[in-house]
Amino acid sequence: MFSSRVVPLTKDAELPAAARDAIALLQMQYVHAIDNDDIERWPQFFTEACVYQIISRGEYDQGRLIGVWFCDNRGMLEDRVSALREVNIYEPHVYRHILGPTEILSFSEGAWSTQTSYIVVRTMADGGMSVFSAGRYVDEIVFDGEVARFRKRRVVTDSGCYDTLVVIPL
Amino acid sequence: MFSSRVVPLTKDAELPAAARDAIALLQMQYVHAIDNDDIERWPQFFTEACVYQIISRGEYDQGRLIGVWFCDNRGMLEDRVSALREVNIYEPHVYRHILGPTEILSFSEGAWSTQTSYIVVRTMADGGMSVFSAGRYVDEIVFDGEVARFRKRRVVTDSGCYDTLVVIPL
Amino acid sequence: MFSSRVVPLTKDAELPAAARDAIALLQMQYVHAIDNDDIERWPQFFTEACVYQIISRGEYDQGRLIGVWFCDNRGMLEDRVSALREVNIYEPHVYRHILGPTEILSFSEGAWSTQTSYIVVRTMADGGMSVFSAGRYVDEIVFDGEVARFRKRRVVTDSGCYDTLVVIPL
Repeated sequence: MFSSRVVPLTKDAELPAAARDAIALLQMQYVHAIDNDDIERWPQFFTEACVYQIISRGEYDQGRLIGVWFCDNRGMLEDRVSALREVNIYEPHVYRHILGPTEILSFSEGAWSTQTSYIVVRTMADGGMSVFSAGRYVDEIVFDGEVARFRKRRVVTDSGCYDTLVVIPL
Repeated sequence: MFSSRVVPLTKDAELPAAARDAIALLQMQYVHAIDNDDIERWPQFFTEACVYQIISRGEYDQGRLIGVWFCDNRGMLEDRVSALREVNIYEPHVYRHILGPTEILSFSEGAWSTQTSYIVVRTMADGGMSVFSAGRYVDEIVFDGEVARFRKRRVVTDSGCYDTLVVIPL
Repeated sequence: MFSSRVVPLTKDAELPAAARDAIALLQMQYVHAIDNDDIERWPQFFTEACVYQIISRGEYDQGRLIGVWFCDNRGMLEDRVSALREVNIYEPHVYRHILGPTEILSFSEGAWSTQTSYIVVRTMADGGMSVFSAGRYVDEIVFDGEVARFRKRRVVTDSGCYDTLVVIPL
């Protein structure tokens, strides 16, 4: 088998192709749900007990895992979606995520640890666009039969400054 | 088989791997042709009778399918290329597309319906760079033997404001 | 076999799937090493005798292959890493690369010639983000047994203007 690895950092080879495909599909459907106004699907990508948080790279590297968003079960994610649909967002906007490929790092306690780079462009109602966030997803992914879900998704942002407008999940 | 889908939204499983690879290659070669100054190849990615349009997300969601660009056959695409090569563009610039993976949504009337997120960075002759467009391609892809082509490509832009400089196709 | 190619531009079909996977892994690990502060791994992605350069599109198209960075062996790359770790960068910042898929163009003199589009977002210590570079990697990739490495990596930037802050490799 061919490999670009100088040292065996990953357990890639042990992950079946079907599971790898399911993880890629999970990553794609997650961002399509958010970006294409299908946000009601967003909680479905997580397990019932789960962690979702947005945290800066500096905080993450120092082990201060608080962040600006923290949810630890699917109900909290559903509440976020309801709030998003019910309130008037001061300045309407949409996201567009582009992801890099998912790197499989290890397998532990029934979950695959992975990391995936992302860039998010935000478009405001007046048409203005900007890079809103860049960073990486640090995930723990589990399989419930054939279905892959996030048991833990940490959005580790390269920037430590947050716009007050983080109302849509990243 | 593994799957991240809670509900069976797609016909992914029915698409042979070789066809999936051909679609990925089509998407890649399309953006490389535009970005790497090989624009003469651009019309080749479409069927003879085809639709290519650039339309804002707001117009698309409301079913007003007019847009800022509309071409309905390959000859019109070739005319666009000729015009691009012959006229002096007031401010020369190049694009760089980065795409997400292609989601296969359904199969109907001989074509695969798909969507693909994109971000385009524009670089001006003076070196200035900016996010020029973000959105998604909503496509209908057909196979002519082994060759995959766009029968319909709608560029659905997240922003409703267009720079007067949309002279290069997205 | 399915194919989107109107003309046989590439030798894709001749590249075994395992080699294709190894090239995708090399591309991913390269950018993760740079973006996730694991820069010491960066020289490992190159052969001992190698070329790494950053060059503008204009210079590249005219065959003036000088550029702002030029290294022709792995030791020079390691010196760059040491310098990066030892000196105080005036304004600390991090990169986030997002790549398109790798197009395999040809095979010659034992190496696969490929091109891969990229966008890099730079985040400064104060949280400010911007598109720092967009362009493509023009690579020659060789296999040493199962390990894929860059024998030549040219970073061809769409912009001809360089920030004085190019201290981290692209």
